[in-house]
Amino acid sequence: MTTVLKLGGSVITAKDDLETVDDEGMETVLDAVGAFEGDLVVVHGGGSFGHHHAAEHGVSSTSGIHDAAGAVAVHGAMKRLNDEVVTRLHERGVGAVPVHPLSAASRAADGALALPTAQVGTMLGEGFTPVLHGDVVAHEGEGVTVVSGDDLVIALARSLDATRVGLCSAVPGVLDVDGEVVTRIDRFDDVARAVGGSDATDVTGGMAAKVRKLLALDTPAHVFDASSVGEFLDGGEPGTRIEHESES
Amino acid sequence: MTTVLKLGGSVITAKDDLETVDDEGMETVLDAVGAFEGDLVVVHGGGSFGHHHAAEHGVSSTSGIHDAAGAVAVHGAMKRLNDEVVTRLHERGVGAVPVHPLSAASRAADGALALPTAQVGTMLGEGFTPVLHGDVVAHEGEGVTVVSGDDLVIALARSLDATRVGLCSAVPGVLDVDGEVVTRIDRFDDVARAVGGSDATDVTGGMAAKVRKLLALDTPAHVFDASSVGEFLDGGEPGTRIEHESES
Repeated sequence: MTTVLKLGGSVITAKDDLETVDDEGMETVLDAVGAFEGDLVVVHGGGSFGHHHAAEHGVSSTSGIHDAAGAVAVHGAMKRLNDEVVTRLHERGVGAVPVHPLSAASRAADGALALPTAQVGTMLGEGFTPVLHGDVVAHEGEGVTVVSGDDLVIALARSLDATRVGLCSAVPGVLDVDGEVVTRIDRFDDVARAVGGSDATDVTGGMAAKVRKLLALDTPAHVFDASSVGEFLDGGEPGTRIEHESES
Repeated sequence: MTTVLKLGGSVITAKDDLETVDDEGMETVLDAVGAFEGDLVVVHGGGSFGHHHAAEHGVSSTSGIHDAAGAVAVHGAMKRLNDEVVTRLHERGVGAVPVHPLSAASRAADGALALPTAQVGTMLGEGFTPVLHGDVVAHEGEGVTVVSGDDLVIALARSLDATRVGLCSAVPGVLDVDGEVVTRIDRFDDVARAVGGSDATDVTGGMAAKVRKLLALDTPAHVFDASSVGEFLDGGEPGTRIEHESES
């Protein structure tokens, strides 16, 4: 019974202010995490810690760099944000331990992500709460490329056979063309028109990429905003539920 | 043709001063690393960064803790030392990237260390120099325990099929009872009397444990001091050569 929870970079950081935590967003979501009892893996995005450095050094999820100092600049900023999250979770009695993807994961030449999870499984078994984050990882033929929090969520949900996946974003769910939350998505075509335009707006992929990846999971996923983390962790179904149609 | 080089904590830190780098030792060994061309994995020990925190929080390689804040205290100190090593290697033109063992490795209930190395292999293939360090890792039934730099060297040498292993220590090699360097060890009995007494003097095992582990490797290993890192990397055989007798 493992839950994977993604905290969007736009929720926990002030996206326009370099390396600045959004205290209200951060406290809201971490309070909810602190009240949860159960096996939980937390993944957070980069927001104003990661994206600026990635852009400055010219590294994306598909286009890499071989400059070690550039790689370490992005990685170091993400570790500073991760340290904030881990420390604030300790203040709430959560046994958070950091897991830095650069240290564990890698990509093959075709971009396929390999993320070993025995360490994460052992941490969960010992009562710890692993906290991962968007990062750079070694990528065959590219040097290092960006791995997004969303990609880590997908890899973790599969490897750990997670029962629930939640993505806390800046919006209350996947929105339709009228700006209303779509409560359920089981085929991409349902929302293609509404989310299609956001593909290019984020270095790590917008809502369209998120929906496509989540539809490919066997685990149902929920997209919601900071006010609904507690409801999700309590077993509720806030925001948008994304689950591919069963093959029958 | 991969070389694994361990930099002892007592070489690169002032062992009696909390979280203090030994500038002379550090610069000497990193200058030699900077002059090397080839696939190299660096592992460093904890010295005054790791051991103090490990002792304070009561964690060793066999006796664990479930206190996440304690684990992060040891881990954080080791990351500060690692950051020093990585930054100083960048200053020497080496494409160093950090690999934090807590993020990647774990131990089974019997203490067996699992260290995935696809990420390290990909880094080497892309021209980077991975830099690992002694750390705490999740350990089934124990919470987290200490993993020594020596244990990481053994695991890396095996997984990466390393051609050479070097351990830079505070002494010029394994010493006999008269304090002279033993130039070659191919059976533990050769040096049992001389090294037997040091087993209990170090949280991560003294020279006796080191010799036993290195004798179990198929790769020849060399133990030497800071002045001989360059000679070792140039293909020389400084200090003590440790290699088990071939089975014939």
